[in-house]
Amino acid sequence: MRVLITGFEPFGDEAINPAWEAVKRLPDTISGASIVKLLVPTAFGACGAILYEALERHAPDAIVGVGQAGGRCDLSVERVAINVADGRIPDNEGRLPVDEPIQPDGPAAYFSTLPIKAIVARVRRRGVPASVSNSAGTYVCNYLMYLALHAVATGRPGTGPGTLAGFVHVPYLPAQAVDKPATTPTMPVETMAAALEAAVEAIVEPGGATTAPEGTIC
Amino acid sequence: MRVLITGFEPFGDEAINPAWEAVKRLPDTISGASIVKLLVPTAFGACGAILYEALERHAPDAIVGVGQAGGRCDLSVERVAINVADGRIPDNEGRLPVDEPIQPDGPAAYFSTLPIKAIVARVRRRGVPASVSNSAGTYVCNYLMYLALHAVATGRPGTGPGTLAGFVHVPYLPAQAVDKPATTPTMPVETMAAALEAAVEAIVEPGGATTAPEGTIC
Amino acid sequence: MRVLITGFEPFGDEAINPAWEAVKRLPDTISGASIVKLLVPTAFGACGAILYEALERHAPDAIVGVGQAGGRCDLSVERVAINVADGRIPDNEGRLPVDEPIQPDGPAAYFSTLPIKAIVARVRRRGVPASVSNSAGTYVCNYLMYLALHAVATGRPGTGPGTLAGFVHVPYLPAQAVDKPATTPTMPVETMAAALEAAVEAIVEPGGATTAPEGTIC
Amino acid sequence: MRVLITGFEPFGDEAINPAWEAVKRLPDTISGASIVKLLVPTAFGACGAILYEALERHAPDAIVGVGQAGGRCDLSVERVAINVADGRIPDNEGRLPVDEPIQPDGPAAYFSTLPIKAIVARVRRRGVPASVSNSAGTYVCNYLMYLALHAVATGRPGTGPGTLAGFVHVPYLPAQAVDKPATTPTMPVETMAAALEAAVEAIVEPGGATTAPEGTIC
Repeated sequence: MRVLITGFEPFGDEAINPAWEAVKRLPDTISGASIVKLLVPTAFGACGAILYEALERHAPDAIVGVGQAGGRCDLSVERVAINVADGRIPDNEGRLPVDEPIQPDGPAAYFSTLPIKAIVARVRRRGVPASVSNSAGTYVCNYLMYLALHAVATGRPGTGPGTLAGFVHVPYLPAQAVDKPATTPTMPVETMAAALEAAVEAIVEPGGATTAPEGTIC
Repeated sequence: MRVLITGFEPFGDEAINPAWEAVKRLPDTISGASIVKLLVPTAFGACGAILYEALERHAPDAIVGVGQAGGRCDLSVERVAINVADGRIPDNEGRLPVDEPIQPDGPAAYFSTLPIKAIVARVRRRGVPASVSNSAGTYVCNYLMYLALHAVATGRPGTGPGTLAGFVHVPYLPAQAVDKPATTPTMPVETMAAALEAAVEAIVEPGGATTAPEGTIC
Repeated sequence: MRVLITGFEPFGDEAINPAWEAVKRLPDTISGASIVKLLVPTAFGACGAILYEALERHAPDAIVGVGQAGGRCDLSVERVAINVADGRIPDNEGRLPVDEPIQPDGPAAYFSTLPIKAIVARVRRRGVPASVSNSAGTYVCNYLMYLALHAVATGRPGTGPGTLAGFVHVPYLPAQAVDKPATTPTMPVETMAAALEAAVEAIVEPGGATTAPEGTIC
Repeated sequence: MRVLITGFEPFGDEAINPAWEAVKRLPDTISGASIVKLLVPTAFGACGAILYEALERHAPDAIVGVGQAGGRCDLSVERVAINVADGRIPDNEGRLPVDEPIQPDGPAAYFSTLPIKAIVARVRRRGVPASVSNSAGTYVCNYLMYLALHAVATGRPGTGPGTLAGFVHVPYLPAQAVDKPATTPTMPVETMAAALEAAVEAIVEPGGATTAPEGTIC
């Protein structure tokens, strides 16, 4: 089994992106699956092109995007990607889409095909807080998650009907928060890497696709 | 023009629901549009039946669901409803769906057809904080929003191709928070009603469907 | 009985200060006590001079300072003022004290002599969230609270041994938050004024000085 | 030089206390100073007795209390301890003081005599978020901090006029938050231990007592 894990380049005012820092620390093999690590630009368009190339080259069984969600406390396992790009700041190539569809002919949304509840359970058992998130935002993270699921749904080269895809968000690193307000939550890279490793285990080991109440009450 | 505005009954540990409290205080006419106010049960299934009846009876031009989102600070204008019901506590009829599709044959999501950015702008001009939200959760609020948009998409009686539909969330009332932690944000019912009135104005007055960067950066 | 209530002028990037907006809406009499409303500059030094003049002129039975605490959700009834001025931004006269004592010969702190737990209870009964706060900060609010208690402790003209003094903080107004993050809590001025009126009732009506567990667990 | 560092036992619903977990991982020597680690009970009264014994036995040059502040994000360096005990839940011996003075004849407060701003700066340079906190609460942490400073002020055996004393708070550990809301911030024990080590360096190395604007604006 082969798992493609992507991590974004730094964006906005940040000099570092915890997603890529954590991804690059992962071992090359997890539970017998080989791990392919891919650095992707934080840019609409460009990150998709890099993803498509990697799909063709590696034909992964699962695609796990990882991105920074400044302000969150835990490993957020995304449930759904929506067909919209709506930024608040320009991406790393200066593009600032507002209310644009990602794929004009694509569906309104794709649900993650990763075992999201099993990932949450496994990461928690590893001692790291995790939860299902119902929004991956509308920036480049959601964009890449949507594109990965659309690639599978439309049978792009390197994917098959059983290719799993999804996305997780990680908090700021401690070093990113030293000049931010005292209420900024963080997670060190070692903790993130441990959480990601547990997440991959939940994906590649059989029996992972459990379900459990993780819903909201609003 | 006729606008159907729904508000939920209290649920969980609450004795009051700010959504219905605010809805019932709305005037009967806003910017020339007649306002139909509908109390709906906080119950999967039942709230849909009540909605369908009201659609048939009133054939509204726009459907605006309103629900409580305890913990939020502002009027949250929902962008999207997703095809999943996943509760954390049972609804008012004791039902606790976990990861169930709302409509097994429905699309993964529907985008609000209300002018969400124009609503946000109008409510802010009224002096009340408002923002676009990218998740209506997975409980009865998201359920009702999904059903309303699905009703329009599938041409249920009382709807037409131009029927608008969407959802907004409101915070707790101050009285709901007196026994909650000091960090619980609230909004009085008069402020909510003013915000909802501004929201309806943005829906019924021409030129409302503006767009603007309101996106996220994760 | 006479109660002196102070409210600050706007400071920082704000064009309005909710404290003064709420204070000026108070009635002239509450539970038989006459209310003297005093606008004070948000400036170390200057606000004290104005306070001292008002003490001499009005010889109040109780002094209640009111200030803006952006980010808080409820009426925060301050327990203690500490003998330090430590700003993060200059005050309205350009002064930015860092770790300076307010009164070089004064004690490290003064406890509020208002019935803080009774105020919290009374405000909550009015339906408005309130709590005891253990820090009034280190800016002009804490400064004024310290000076008021020091004035009483040192027998400044217009005070007597039974003169009560303390401070409460109020959140942002909704209009202040329309351009702030969606997670900014607010309280409308009418709600603040109702809370302040309940607070004054708790001060002037006999039997107010109750105690109850409102403490922290850290 | 000798530094006494205390960490509390678990309390409330917790099975572990991050304070002690971090303290016990510290090296025995930091910047040439010998480190004495002391586990203290989370109990009013009892923790003081243990502290006094340790003062007599070790005659430390500096006393650094460490406690859990669930909900905080960073290393909080406390500025002040106040003369009040006001719990919300009973301590580990079942005692729940409400608005009681810690020392009936003691001053209203003691300021930390540790170089708090230098500690914050040093911890941040280590890449860990830190800030000055203006409230150590009213529970056992504030109690122990007050007692330590009172011990020095009153010349208890084992202290001298130059004995430094203060307190820092640490967040929850990740493992404590896996069953808490997704918005619960955490810090791993390794990060805490690194921060505490940097804090001790700031205390024992000359030139530490810097000052800088770290104040509040409320």
